[in-house]
Amino acid sequence: MARIDGRKYDQLRSLTILPDFTRYAEGSVLITQGNTMVLCTASFTEGVPRHVKGTGLGWLTAEYDMLPRANRERSSRDIAKLKLSGRSAEIQRLIGRSLRSVTDMAKLGENTFVIDCDVLQGDGGTRCASITGGFVALFIACARLIEQGVLTEMPLRDYIAALGCGIVHIDGADHPVVDMSYEEDSCAIVDFNLVATGTGAIAEIQGTGEGRPYTPQELSSLVSMALPAVEEVIRVQKEITDKYGYKL
Amino acid sequence: MARIDGRKYDQLRSLTILPDFTRYAEGSVLITQGNTMVLCTASFTEGVPRHVKGTGLGWLTAEYDMLPRANRERSSRDIAKLKLSGRSAEIQRLIGRSLRSVTDMAKLGENTFVIDCDVLQGDGGTRCASITGGFVALFIACARLIEQGVLTEMPLRDYIAALGCGIVHIDGADHPVVDMSYEEDSCAIVDFNLVATGTGAIAEIQGTGEGRPYTPQELSSLVSMALPAVEEVIRVQKEITDKYGYKL
Amino acid sequence: MARIDGRKYDQLRSLTILPDFTRYAEGSVLITQGNTMVLCTASFTEGVPRHVKGTGLGWLTAEYDMLPRANRERSSRDIAKLKLSGRSAEIQRLIGRSLRSVTDMAKLGENTFVIDCDVLQGDGGTRCASITGGFVALFIACARLIEQGVLTEMPLRDYIAALGCGIVHIDGADHPVVDMSYEEDSCAIVDFNLVATGTGAIAEIQGTGEGRPYTPQELSSLVSMALPAVEEVIRVQKEITDKYGYKL
Amino acid sequence: MARIDGRKYDQLRSLTILPDFTRYAEGSVLITQGNTMVLCTASFTEGVPRHVKGTGLGWLTAEYDMLPRANRERSSRDIAKLKLSGRSAEIQRLIGRSLRSVTDMAKLGENTFVIDCDVLQGDGGTRCASITGGFVALFIACARLIEQGVLTEMPLRDYIAALGCGIVHIDGADHPVVDMSYEEDSCAIVDFNLVATGTGAIAEIQGTGEGRPYTPQELSSLVSMALPAVEEVIRVQKEITDKYGYKL
Amino acid sequence: MARIDGRKYDQLRSLTILPDFTRYAEGSVLITQGNTMVLCTASFTEGVPRHVKGTGLGWLTAEYDMLPRANRERSSRDIAKLKLSGRSAEIQRLIGRSLRSVTDMAKLGENTFVIDCDVLQGDGGTRCASITGGFVALFIACARLIEQGVLTEMPLRDYIAALGCGIVHIDGADHPVVDMSYEEDSCAIVDFNLVATGTGAIAEIQGTGEGRPYTPQELSSLVSMALPAVEEVIRVQKEITDKYGYKL
Amino acid sequence: MARIDGRKYDQLRSLTILPDFTRYAEGSVLITQGNTMVLCTASFTEGVPRHVKGTGLGWLTAEYDMLPRANRERSSRDIAKLKLSGRSAEIQRLIGRSLRSVTDMAKLGENTFVIDCDVLQGDGGTRCASITGGFVALFIACARLIEQGVLTEMPLRDYIAALGCGIVHIDGADHPVVDMSYEEDSCAIVDFNLVATGTGAIAEIQGTGEGRPYTPQELSSLVSMALPAVEEVIRVQKEITDKYGYKL
Repeated sequence: MARIDGRKYDQLRSLTILPDFTRYAEGSVLITQGNTMVLCTASFTEGVPRHVKGTGLGWLTAEYDMLPRANRERSSRDIAKLKLSGRSAEIQRLIGRSLRSVTDMAKLGENTFVIDCDVLQGDGGTRCASITGGFVALFIACARLIEQGVLTEMPLRDYIAALGCGIVHIDGADHPVVDMSYEEDSCAIVDFNLVATGTGAIAEIQGTGEGRPYTPQELSSLVSMALPAVEEVIRVQKEITDKYGYKL
Repeated sequence: MARIDGRKYDQLRSLTILPDFTRYAEGSVLITQGNTMVLCTASFTEGVPRHVKGTGLGWLTAEYDMLPRANRERSSRDIAKLKLSGRSAEIQRLIGRSLRSVTDMAKLGENTFVIDCDVLQGDGGTRCASITGGFVALFIACARLIEQGVLTEMPLRDYIAALGCGIVHIDGADHPVVDMSYEEDSCAIVDFNLVATGTGAIAEIQGTGEGRPYTPQELSSLVSMALPAVEEVIRVQKEITDKYGYKL
Repeated sequence: MARIDGRKYDQLRSLTILPDFTRYAEGSVLITQGNTMVLCTASFTEGVPRHVKGTGLGWLTAEYDMLPRANRERSSRDIAKLKLSGRSAEIQRLIGRSLRSVTDMAKLGENTFVIDCDVLQGDGGTRCASITGGFVALFIACARLIEQGVLTEMPLRDYIAALGCGIVHIDGADHPVVDMSYEEDSCAIVDFNLVATGTGAIAEIQGTGEGRPYTPQELSSLVSMALPAVEEVIRVQKEITDKYGYKL
Repeated sequence: MARIDGRKYDQLRSLTILPDFTRYAEGSVLITQGNTMVLCTASFTEGVPRHVKGTGLGWLTAEYDMLPRANRERSSRDIAKLKLSGRSAEIQRLIGRSLRSVTDMAKLGENTFVIDCDVLQGDGGTRCASITGGFVALFIACARLIEQGVLTEMPLRDYIAALGCGIVHIDGADHPVVDMSYEEDSCAIVDFNLVATGTGAIAEIQGTGEGRPYTPQELSSLVSMALPAVEEVIRVQKEITDKYGYKL
Repeated sequence: MARIDGRKYDQLRSLTILPDFTRYAEGSVLITQGNTMVLCTASFTEGVPRHVKGTGLGWLTAEYDMLPRANRERSSRDIAKLKLSGRSAEIQRLIGRSLRSVTDMAKLGENTFVIDCDVLQGDGGTRCASITGGFVALFIACARLIEQGVLTEMPLRDYIAALGCGIVHIDGADHPVVDMSYEEDSCAIVDFNLVATGTGAIAEIQGTGEGRPYTPQELSSLVSMALPAVEEVIRVQKEITDKYGYKL
Repeated sequence: MARIDGRKYDQLRSLTILPDFTRYAEGSVLITQGNTMVLCTASFTEGVPRHVKGTGLGWLTAEYDMLPRANRERSSRDIAKLKLSGRSAEIQRLIGRSLRSVTDMAKLGENTFVIDCDVLQGDGGTRCASITGGFVALFIACARLIEQGVLTEMPLRDYIAALGCGIVHIDGADHPVVDMSYEEDSCAIVDFNLVATGTGAIAEIQGTGEGRPYTPQELSSLVSMALPAVEEVIRVQKEITDKYGYKL
C-alpha cells in the first residue's frame, strides 16, 4: 500500500538546503531533494531591463539550466543547438514569476536580481527545488545587502516554496501524492506543480492530465494534501533563513 | 456591477470559428474571440520525431507565433532576435500537450500533425483561442484524411477547448470571471487558463496569482464558473465539426 | 488559345483589397489576388536606424514572411532554422526599395515605417501582392497620422504597384502574360516582376530567363503588356485610398 | 562631357582575369575590374541537395561574401552578427541562377558545383564581377574534370557574363553608362545589372530606379548599350577559357 | 619573501578530488583546488563523429563551461548571446587534446567519451583543474565500463594532469611559481599551462608573456619547477583511481 | 636525410610579404609562405570595447577565417553553421594576444585596431603567417596614421613574428624542424607554434604532443632551433617595414 520508494502519500523526500555553497554570489545554496540537486545563486546587478527603466522599481529574473549529464542520458548543451530548450524557457519563467510575487520591487531601487538555478542532478521536481532553493539564495542575498547598506530594508514580503505533486495509480486506485521522484512522475496520471507562500496561499498552480483528464474533486483533494506539504518545505527554509537575522 | 465591457461574470465574448479559411492545409480555421483573431492550420506530414520512431505511434506538435503587428505595439519577429520568445515556447508546449491529450497516437501511424497557430490580432486569451481553434482545424484534417483513405478511423477521442479566466476586482470585491480581454487580463488579480474536454473534465489548469496569492476556495469557485463556460465553447466547436460527419 | 485558368494574356486575376483587416496597426489591408492572400500592415515607430540618425529624415523598411502552411507543403519557420530564408531576404529588400521610391523621407521626421507582409496563402505573385497591398496599408497609415496630427503632410508622392508577369508557352508559341499564378509561374520560360508608379513609369524590373535567355524584343513586348496591367492594379488601389481623403 | 573617371559612356574599366590564383579548387580565378577584385573558386563536391536527390541531375549553387575590409569602411563579419547579410543572400541567389542557366545539370551526375565568390576589394559591380569570374572558374573546373575523367562531356552550354550599368546625370542630361564604379553607382539615377550570354541574349535583368522611376524608352536604350558591352566582357573570358581546350 | 597567499613558489593549493559527486554519469568528480571548484563528468555514448566513422576507433571530446555566477561578477550564459565564448572554445579543445593523448581509441570501439567540465566556482586554474579532474572522471568511467563488460580492457595508457604556473614579481624579482590563484594570475608577467603525464613527460605547454616576452632560460626554469608539481597532482589522482582497481 | 620537400631542418619555406595588396585598409599585406597565402588587413576604428572604455587606452583585436576553398576539401562557411569554428576562435585569440604584446595601447587613444587575417590558401602554418603578416599590416597602418596626424607617435614597441615548428620522424630518428607544411604537420610527433619578438624573446609558445609526450630536453632543442628561424622571418618583415620610414 505504499509508493515506489516506500514513502507515505504525503511524505516529502529528504530535503537539505546547504547555504553559501559558492562564495562569490550575493546568495547561494545547494538544495538536495532526494536525488535532485540544484545549485541556486542570487546575483544583484545594477540597472533594470528596458520595460522597467525610469519607474524607480527593481526587477527580478531567473535562469534555469540542466548540466548535460544531470540525467540518466547525457543531453547536449543549449549552445550546441543554439536554442534555449523550450522546457527551460517555460521553467525559468515560472521561477521568475514565483519569486517576483513575494518581492517588493520598490525596495530594490533600479537594480536587478538574477536567480540562476543550475541542476547538477535531476530526479524529478527540479523546477520546484529551484523555486524553493532560489528563494533561500535570494533571502541570503537580501540579508547581506542590507548588512552592507546596499539595501535599506528587506524587500521580501513572504516565504515561497514549491512541490511537484500528482495523482498516481497504486494498488488499484488513484491517489494524490506529494514530492514525486522522476520514476513516479514518469507514470503519473496527473502532474501538478504547486507554488505556495508562508501564509498558506497559492502563488501558482499548474496541473496537467497526463494519462487522463481529471475532475474538480481530484483537484481539490490534491490541493488539500499538497498545501500542508509545501508548508513543511517552508519550515525547512526557515531553519536556514532564520540564521540570517530576518523573519518575514 | 459589470465588467469593463459590460459582460456578466460568466459571459463569453462573441466567438466565431470560420472553417477552411485557407485552402492548402489539411484543416484550417480562423477563430475570432472578441478582438482576438488566430489562424489555426493542421498539417499532416510523414514521419515522426526521433523519440517516437519505431514505436508505430504518431505524434502531434504545435507552433505558436504572433504576427509583428498583432498588438497595440509592433514587436520584432523572433528571427530578427534569433530566439524563439520564451512566451511562445511556453504557449506552444501547452497547445501541443492539450491536443495530444485527446488524440490516439496509434491511429495516426508514424505520421505527425503540426498545428500552426498564428495570432493575426491579439486581445487576450490567444493561447486559449489557439487550443480551441487548433482542435477544430485538427478535427477537419482528420475527417478529410479519413475521407481520402489516409487515416482509417477517427484518432480524436474527445473535444477540447480552453478559456482564459481570472479573478478581477469590480466595485469593491474580487470576482471570478471568464474569457478575459487584454484590458481585463492586465489588471487581473489571478490569471487562469483552463483547458477542458467534452466530458467536462480538466485537461490542464494553470493559475497564477498576479496581484496576490489566492486561496483553495477561490480556486474552487473559479473552476466552478469556468468549466461550464468551456463547455459552451465546445458547443460552438461542435456546430462546425458536426458538419464534417463525425461526432466524438 | 488560352492560359491554364482560361484568362486572356493581359487579364488580371480577381483582385480585392480589404482595408482595416486588423485594428491596431496604423494601416492594414488583406490583399487577395486569385488564391494569393497577404496581410499587410504599416507600423509607425519612433526613431530611425543608425545610418539615418541625425539627418532629419525618416526611414521605411519592409519585412516579408510566409506562414508555414501558406503553401501546398508545410515549410518550417525561419526561427526553427535560425535563418531568415534567402528568398524572404531578397523579397523584403525589394518591397522596401519600392515603397521608399515613392515616399518623401523628409516628411516623416526621424521616424520609421515598418511594412509587414505576411503571406497567409501563396499562389504566385506574393512579392508583388505585398508591394501593392503594402502601399495601401502605408497610404491608410499616412492618412490616419495626418488626421492625428502626427504627420503634417502626405509623405507619399505617387502610387506604386507590382505584377508578376512572364513569357509562357501556349499552343506552340511563347506569349507574354500578366499576373501569373503559381502553376503558370512554375513552367514559365521567363519570369518578370514589374513595379510601376501611378505615372506609368518603371520603379523596378527584375526579369529572369528560367527556361532560356530572352531577347531585347521580348523584354520590350513584355513591358508593353505589363505596364498597362499594373496601371489597372493601381486603379483598384485608388478605389480604396480615395476614401481616405487624399489623392496623390 | 565625360564620366567621373574620364571613360566614355560605353567604355569598360580595365578587366583582368587571372586563372589558377589558388591551387586546391577545381577551378579558380582572381578577377579585377577597375578596383574591384573578387576571388572566385569552383568546387566540385559529391552529392546534391535534397530537392534534387534521385533525379540523376546535378546542382550548382553560389556563395558570396565580402572580406571585412574590402570597402572604405570595415564591416563586421556575418558570423559576428549570426546573420547572413540580406544583400549577400540576394546576390548569391543571382549568381547561382545565372550560372545554372548555362549549365546542363544532366551532365554533372548527382554532384554539386559550389561557386565561392569572395570580394577582396569592392569598388562597384562586385555581383557582376562574381558572375563573370565565377563562370571562368567553373569553366576551368569542368575542363579539368573532363581531363580527369570525372565528367564525360562539357556541361556548359554557353558563356555568361554580367555588367553593372546605369543611368547617370552628366553635364545636364541623363545618360546610360556601363560598368559603373562605386562612386558612379552611388549617385546613379537608375541602377541596372545585366546578365547576358555568349549568344547575345539576356539571362537576367534587374533595374532599380534610385532617384526616380524610368521609362520603357530608357530601359531600351540602356539595354542597347549594355548588351554589346557584356559581349566585350565575354571576349575577355574567352581569352582565358580558350586555353583550356574547349569552346562552347 | 612569499606569495600573495603565503605559499612557497612551488607549493600547490589545497587539492581535493571527490569521486562520484553525481550518480548518473559513468564517472564524475568534484575537484576543488583552492577556491576553484569544477564538476567533471565522463559520459560514454554510442557512435562517433563523422570523421571517425568506419575506422573502428572511438573518440573523446570535452566541453567546458562556467556557471554564470562562478566568478566575482555574474557573466551571461553563452545561450543568451548565442555564441560559445571564444575562451571556452579554446579551453575545451585543450582538455580534449590532453585527454585523447593518453587514450587508446582502438579500445573504445566506435563509441565516444564526452567529458563535461562545468566550473561551479572559478579562482584561477580552471582549465587545468578540468584536465586533472576530467582525467579522474574518465578513469572511473573506464573502470566501471570494464566491470560492466562494455569495455574489455583499460583504454587509458597513462595518467595526465595540469597546472597553471607562471612568473610573478615578488619583492623586486621575477620568480616562477606553480598553481596560481586568480589574484596571482591577473598580475603575472608570464602565464603558463603545463599538461604532463605520469611518466613526467610534457603533453602540452602553453606559455604567454603577459607583461613582457620571456627568455628560453626562464622557460626552462619554469618547466623545471612545474613538472614535479604536476607529478604531485598526479599522486593525488592516484589516491582516488587506485581504489577502482586499476593502475596504469 | 632530408625533409619531405627537401628542406634542411632549420630552413624556411619561400616567404614573401606583398604590401598594400588592397587599397582601402589603413594597412594590408598578402603574405605567402610556401603554398600558404593569407590576406592581412589592419583597420583603425574609433572607439574601444566596453572593458576598455574610459581608461584612455586603445585596443587591438584580431579576426581569422579561412575562405571555404582555401584547402584541399571545401569547408562550409561559419555562417552556414551559425558558429564560429572553435579552431578559428582559438587562433584569433592567439593573433590578438601576440600583436597586443608589442603595442603600447596608451599611444592609440581610445581607438581600436582590428587585424583581419583571411586565409586564401592553406598549407600549414596559417596562424603563424597571420601573426607575421598581421604585424606588417599593423606597422604600415601605424606609419600611415602618423603621417596623417591621426597618431602622434609609433605605438609599436618591437617586431613580432611566428613559426609553426615541430618534431618529425625522418630516417629513423626524431628531429626538430621549422616552418612545417601541411603534409609535414599532419604526421608531426610534436607540434609547436613559437611567437617571438625582434629582441629574440618569446612572446608565446604552444607545444602539443601529437604522437607522444615530449621531454624538457626536446622542448629546449626545439626552441634553440626555432628562435633564430623566427629572427630570420623578422628580417623579411624589416625589408618591408623599413620602407615606411620607421624602425623599432
